[in-house]
Amino acid sequence: MPEHMPEHTPEITAQELATRVGAAMWARDRAPQMLGMRLISIAPGAACLDMPVREDMTNGHAICHGGLIFTLADTAFAYACNSGNHTTVASACHVDFLAPAQVGDILRAEATERATAGRSGVYDVTVTRQDGSIIAMFRGKSSRIKGDVLTGP
Amino acid sequence: MPEHMPEHTPEITAQELATRVGAAMWARDRAPQMLGMRLISIAPGAACLDMPVREDMTNGHAICHGGLIFTLADTAFAYACNSGNHTTVASACHVDFLAPAQVGDILRAEATERATAGRSGVYDVTVTRQDGSIIAMFRGKSSRIKGDVLTGP
Amino acid sequence: MPEHMPEHTPEITAQELATRVGAAMWARDRAPQMLGMRLISIAPGAACLDMPVREDMTNGHAICHGGLIFTLADTAFAYACNSGNHTTVASACHVDFLAPAQVGDILRAEATERATAGRSGVYDVTVTRQDGSIIAMFRGKSSRIKGDVLTGP
Amino acid sequence: MPEHMPEHTPEITAQELATRVGAAMWARDRAPQMLGMRLISIAPGAACLDMPVREDMTNGHAICHGGLIFTLADTAFAYACNSGNHTTVASACHVDFLAPAQVGDILRAEATERATAGRSGVYDVTVTRQDGSIIAMFRGKSSRIKGDVLTGP
Repeated sequence: MPEHMPEHTPEITAQELATRVGAAMWARDRAPQMLGMRLISIAPGAACLDMPVREDMTNGHAICHGGLIFTLADTAFAYACNSGNHTTVASACHVDFLAPAQVGDILRAEATERATAGRSGVYDVTVTRQDGSIIAMFRGKSSRIKGDVLTGP
Repeated sequence: MPEHMPEHTPEITAQELATRVGAAMWARDRAPQMLGMRLISIAPGAACLDMPVREDMTNGHAICHGGLIFTLADTAFAYACNSGNHTTVASACHVDFLAPAQVGDILRAEATERATAGRSGVYDVTVTRQDGSIIAMFRGKSSRIKGDVLTGP
Repeated sequence: MPEHMPEHTPEITAQELATRVGAAMWARDRAPQMLGMRLISIAPGAACLDMPVREDMTNGHAICHGGLIFTLADTAFAYACNSGNHTTVASACHVDFLAPAQVGDILRAEATERATAGRSGVYDVTVTRQDGSIIAMFRGKSSRIKGDVLTGP
Repeated sequence: MPEHMPEHTPEITAQELATRVGAAMWARDRAPQMLGMRLISIAPGAACLDMPVREDMTNGHAICHGGLIFTLADTAFAYACNSGNHTTVASACHVDFLAPAQVGDILRAEATERATAGRSGVYDVTVTRQDGSIIAMFRGKSSRIKGDVLTGP
């Protein structure tokens, strides 16, 4: 390899790019860190995060606030749809809540790309509990805007 | 208070009931407090909350995390659909994100009941910024379960 | 009218434009005609249509097929979001079904613009029965594309 | 097999039951027949239908009316969620439109169960064109009510 080869060569694989994007996003992604999420994996069009349910995440019914279950899913969606380094935001999201989550549960969100059309994409995220049961199903529509993730906002 | 006055008289108005429910929910609603929300008002089938966007609420694009905008809307939805004291949970939610929110913005969510059918209800929540512009539009489907809010979980 | 008056003068009101757009769309809008819909009114950002439920519109449960209730709502949405003469298509739609409709019911869909952002818009459509009860609530996201309605596809 | 064996024995497989349910529903499912749909297959939690786009199915933009694309998807959803013979209706549906369909296209909808919880279920339907490209993605929430399909409404 030539001595002055720039860092981003055309030879970088889609997986290497996704890994770099994940690291760059995570470094400045404050809300997921505040909520105790962990980025488990990122790949082209896919991502996985988890989040232990803390006591300060409950709602008035003493179960995990649905908004925070959504936030976990939305975060997995964001990593999946930005994994190609094109800055991409959520345009609309839909969530079905199927079972409650309790304090101490460890929730896992797995996002995968289902379809793309022009600058739009459709991603599905399934949120499960440590026993594998489904807590929520999320579908997000993404919209690619100007800029790239590695350069930053 | 007269000696034999029962605490919950039939004479209590729907507004008084909603006020009591709001206070009881808020006292144990930990996630909204952790996120700095304020319960502005609650009425039969309606509620209003606000939330200042803190620095630890941003995402990798340096704007307010969409999940937390959703969480604010979802919380207003919860107060509106529980305002009659029947324990009610979110079954499904849909959100359209229309504009980003920045650190320092004060977001306001206003929820109103649009329709009910059996144990289900449809509620709309509009999230606006301090200048009145719309940040997000949320629609939630509620499902009434057993129990009442004042007795607690 | 002066001899050289151009057909589309700047003086045309938004209502006049909506009326022309409605007439032009209706003339080539075959599916709504096949389904017996009627265009009741169109205005800037709003439209109203109705549809009598025919026997050939039922499903296997002997009630009006939900897809045709959706189609009525979607059509009202289309007239509302195209009323400004910018060609606009549906990007995503969400529907909550609240009550069944029977053969002989006359369903009415009223669409109104709720918000716009760039080339996107959010529209709500309520479908009611002749007694005023709500059958379905629809929310559509529109996307403006190239072209104008009066010039045609 | 014993002489007086009742028609619905416990030994009937889930696939045999789905096949019978599909035949019973189709016999009285008038809207899909009016729209020229064909029931390709039904299995436990799954169904596939197709629909050629006719000239009388177009909208004012001269493409297939989105409501009829939805109706095809909604029909596949109905067969999938009724395949176990428990009468089940659509509670809410969400659709993302990804590409237009033209007159002469043959649209195919494949529905699969993604999750169930109590009397609710979540089903995904993908609508493709004859070249395999995705036209729309649909997600439906089902609600089981009283009755069974084979006995009828």
